[in-house]
Amino acid sequence: MKKNNNRRVHSHDVTKAAKEALLRRGVKIEDIAEIVYEMQYPYNDGLTLEHCIKSVERVLLKREVQHAILVGVELDQLAEKKMLSQPLQSIVESDEGLFGVDETIALSSVLTYGSIALTTYGHLDKNKIGIIKKLDTKSGNGVHTFLDDLVASIAACAASRIAHKLRDLEEEGETFKSVPPHELGPEGEMLPVDDEP
Amino acid sequence: MKKNNNRRVHSHDVTKAAKEALLRRGVKIEDIAEIVYEMQYPYNDGLTLEHCIKSVERVLLKREVQHAILVGVELDQLAEKKMLSQPLQSIVESDEGLFGVDETIALSSVLTYGSIALTTYGHLDKNKIGIIKKLDTKSGNGVHTFLDDLVASIAACAASRIAHKLRDLEEEGETFKSVPPHELGPEGEMLPVDDEP
Amino acid sequence: MKKNNNRRVHSHDVTKAAKEALLRRGVKIEDIAEIVYEMQYPYNDGLTLEHCIKSVERVLLKREVQHAILVGVELDQLAEKKMLSQPLQSIVESDEGLFGVDETIALSSVLTYGSIALTTYGHLDKNKIGIIKKLDTKSGNGVHTFLDDLVASIAACAASRIAHKLRDLEEEGETFKSVPPHELGPEGEMLPVDDEP
Amino acid sequence: MKKNNNRRVHSHDVTKAAKEALLRRGVKIEDIAEIVYEMQYPYNDGLTLEHCIKSVERVLLKREVQHAILVGVELDQLAEKKMLSQPLQSIVESDEGLFGVDETIALSSVLTYGSIALTTYGHLDKNKIGIIKKLDTKSGNGVHTFLDDLVASIAACAASRIAHKLRDLEEEGETFKSVPPHELGPEGEMLPVDDEP
Repeated sequence: MKKNNNRRVHSHDVTKAAKEALLRRGVKIEDIAEIVYEMQYPYNDGLTLEHCIKSVERVLLKREVQHAILVGVELDQLAEKKMLSQPLQSIVESDEGLFGVDETIALSSVLTYGSIALTTYGHLDKNKIGIIKKLDTKSGNGVHTFLDDLVASIAACAASRIAHKLRDLEEEGETFKSVPPHELGPEGEMLPVDDEP
Repeated sequence: MKKNNNRRVHSHDVTKAAKEALLRRGVKIEDIAEIVYEMQYPYNDGLTLEHCIKSVERVLLKREVQHAILVGVELDQLAEKKMLSQPLQSIVESDEGLFGVDETIALSSVLTYGSIALTTYGHLDKNKIGIIKKLDTKSGNGVHTFLDDLVASIAACAASRIAHKLRDLEEEGETFKSVPPHELGPEGEMLPVDDEP
Repeated sequence: MKKNNNRRVHSHDVTKAAKEALLRRGVKIEDIAEIVYEMQYPYNDGLTLEHCIKSVERVLLKREVQHAILVGVELDQLAEKKMLSQPLQSIVESDEGLFGVDETIALSSVLTYGSIALTTYGHLDKNKIGIIKKLDTKSGNGVHTFLDDLVASIAACAASRIAHKLRDLEEEGETFKSVPPHELGPEGEMLPVDDEP
Repeated sequence: MKKNNNRRVHSHDVTKAAKEALLRRGVKIEDIAEIVYEMQYPYNDGLTLEHCIKSVERVLLKREVQHAILVGVELDQLAEKKMLSQPLQSIVESDEGLFGVDETIALSSVLTYGSIALTTYGHLDKNKIGIIKKLDTKSGNGVHTFLDDLVASIAACAASRIAHKLRDLEEEGETFKSVPPHELGPEGEMLPVDDEP
């Protein structure tokens, strides 16, 4: 276990930096929410894009997710600027097929949301939809070797939260029609796991 | 993804069954909390056993944890009654060294609490302390091949919650002395991840 | 870490029991190999069903995989015979949507084959094809709550081995046309990881 | 799944670069082997340091391990040169307690060796021994936030291979006394999983 020390970054700064990193790389919260909506609306009566946006916002509050974003975006940017040493530069730049560190980093967040998040992530990784397709390093400009996996991971976590909420609603005989979107968001009853007291 | 159907067990019944299964097999919440306390008190000023009890109670509300308990205890009990088919009966009964399904089932909950939970679990699995030592299939009576790993997993999750809470406290310049134990428990501000809306 | 003792099951008996369990539950090696072929033939020039059969046979030699099969099939069969205690009986019998122990057990083997196996598994879990579709507990007779995930896991592992072999072939400027199928099988140059000396 | 393309790095170059990265950062294969020996000799009659060296050498041939080393060492070095952007620079430089990307990257290799490797890794992460202790960012000079976890991971994988080999030996009624060390190494009967055909 690591010990604590004093050269600390405040968690608000980490949250802010992670959100800015996504935006700087061209990914809006709405883009991720659209993937979530596409995955979940067939199963969830009354689900709206707004619910999905709030769920994504909540996922983005998790430390595990924020750290993954900071590391992944940093490596993508360093690769774009040709600042990684060889052979890592070539591997990241070309999104090498057997390189799995990108999936691994994204996976750590996915695992904190259980088995539904995991299979959803696997599905998204294989069947790239929405912004994930656009980010594919091989089809576009720029290096997004880590970013496409991070986005798939965030979408999978947000989708998993909705699937779990559905279960609770069903037990009460209700649907998403009776759920105000903000309940799924940062201001809702529940904080992200990592920040649980 | 699995579809829903109607032969549903209500989540309250699952919660109740998981708690009863632990008790029936001789594991009290206090027993698990003592392991958590032993692991965490050196790092956490003002931490009490009561905080640890509440943290364990919260972990026990997670669906992922409850399902793992139900399956693991069932297999232990079937093995005790010699009701598993061969060669599984012998493998479980003897807690075979290379059999890893017990660790795997316990691990699924651990992963939902992030990397601190994981390394704590690995540590507990190797250095069995408290009730975990007593449950060791090879040293005592009865079959507890799955139960000892489940207990280590619950303790690791509860310990991880405390480590994360400490981080928040430090940012506020506070310690556990200012945290009423119930804040860490089921009635606290946060619900378990699996049950997040 | 577990200690060894003397009431040991020989690994040959475990191998035999795992293969028989699959057959008894209606899953032939060819059925799994067909899924592998379907997943991999678009990327692999010269790949045949026979290569896939051999790759599946090799995966079935891994202890981690064999143990997962024994436990999963046992639980499916006990559920069919209504021999599990409640509420586990209802949960397994109905393949409850949020029950994740089936995916977890299958996942342990998948993780030993790296990130390609993992995303392939997620894909198969969501887009059930071939025998996996037939096994779906909700659409057919019998309880296959664990078996469908096990089959997806074995197929994902066998597919991952082929993707890794492709990489080696490309470095030599070759294709699967020059690979005799048995090279991918148990009698090939490499033994499964678990059994590595 | 990623597609292949032509800007390829040959696997020999990746192998070479990973070994050089460890040496450049002050970690010799013997250092890692000593940890393995310390962990395994109480259980393995006839085990020598040479067996452990060979096992480490074999683990270092796995692509998953090599990629993890390249990424982790790169991030450590960039942090030393103050070349990461904020707040990642501060987080990595201070080996922040709740930062888990270092454990996550190391973990991906560990998972490919099954549950024994995993619990061994957790143990080593908590009870830093040998070179791992020396590398601890907080106690020494330089940044080794990723490297200490990588070394723990390689040691855990090499130890797991020995535990599995022991099992095979016991079935034959033999010990490590009858095993020439090179059998556990790259030139032995088995190649690393990732490179399996």
